[in-house]
Amino acid sequence: MSRLIAAIKSLIRISADEEQLIAGLFKPLQIQSGQYFLEEGQLCRYVGFIEEGLMRYHMNDNGNQKTLYFNKEGEFVSNYQSFLPRVPSNTSIQAIEDATLQVINYADLQRMYTAVNEGEKLGRLAIENVFINSLEQLKSFYRDSPSDRYQHFLRSYPDLAQRIPQYYIASYVGIKPQSLSRIRKRLVTQNK
Amino acid sequence: MSRLIAAIKSLIRISADEEQLIAGLFKPLQIQSGQYFLEEGQLCRYVGFIEEGLMRYHMNDNGNQKTLYFNKEGEFVSNYQSFLPRVPSNTSIQAIEDATLQVINYADLQRMYTAVNEGEKLGRLAIENVFINSLEQLKSFYRDSPSDRYQHFLRSYPDLAQRIPQYYIASYVGIKPQSLSRIRKRLVTQNK
Repeated sequence: MSRLIAAIKSLIRISADEEQLIAGLFKPLQIQSGQYFLEEGQLCRYVGFIEEGLMRYHMNDNGNQKTLYFNKEGEFVSNYQSFLPRVPSNTSIQAIEDATLQVINYADLQRMYTAVNEGEKLGRLAIENVFINSLEQLKSFYRDSPSDRYQHFLRSYPDLAQRIPQYYIASYVGIKPQSLSRIRKRLVTQNK
Repeated sequence: MSRLIAAIKSLIRISADEEQLIAGLFKPLQIQSGQYFLEEGQLCRYVGFIEEGLMRYHMNDNGNQKTLYFNKEGEFVSNYQSFLPRVPSNTSIQAIEDATLQVINYADLQRMYTAVNEGEKLGRLAIENVFINSLEQLKSFYRDSPSDRYQHFLRSYPDLAQRIPQYYIASYVGIKPQSLSRIRKRLVTQNK
């Protein structure tokens, strides 16, 4: 919980009472590596704050899994396209390392917005951050070649390249694992 | 201005004084068809509310213009990836019909958040809406074939298909205008 409270305090001022209130609205959730925070077709019931672990977003494309993005410790995880309008999700979210989350449901999040003095500001700032990150990641699919996407991934997430299996990175870049191997070899040769 | 005030009142309650204050913070801006609200490389200085008109977002991809999405009357227009972190934009925003906007700059928007009682709530709700729409449009690039993207476009924007030149629709779908013609002919044949 301390990491969540620190993240909130980096965005707004909260009193000791408000800290207590927030701590009561979030619930701990453990997810083992490979298990799901959200499955396609379900309603996304929670926004989670990742205290430890790594999450992968993916969607089904004619039987193929496409990896959309990743979230790691210190970041919020949710499918807002399902959570906010209360409709079934077209995306799955899976833990790819054992994860410890603090989660809040829709009703309790609305409660936090109204009960905490700067609650609405917190909501605005948090969603602004998530929005900018999502746009950056999704625009890259549109703009960049697989090789550019891989290099962009390495620049944006230097710490994650070691933590994510190569076949998930290939799926994120949008190519087969063998093609990613070729790109990696070429980059190594170029940088020699 | 009345359309903007109505849009704000659909999200939060405002007093008569607050309505006056908001009306003073937004400035009218006319943009002729073909002119730019924002050019790549510039800082996005405004969030605009479209009272009349139609705007197109595009980015440069090795000399080719790619159309990312459209905004029409009653919607907000901005590149939040530039506006929020105050960095140069990698996207251009062009009027493709004569447009009447009400625009607010960064400092005045912060003023509105603090001076209006439910200002922060307005900011949160507005960005949530923009976020969900952007995600939906950008995910479609990743997931859908050109034919699917075109049909998705027709379903999502039935009123826009008549207002947007075919070459911009082709650029949005991600194909050449001739390929769009073929897709359109095939769909007409299938629906007979």
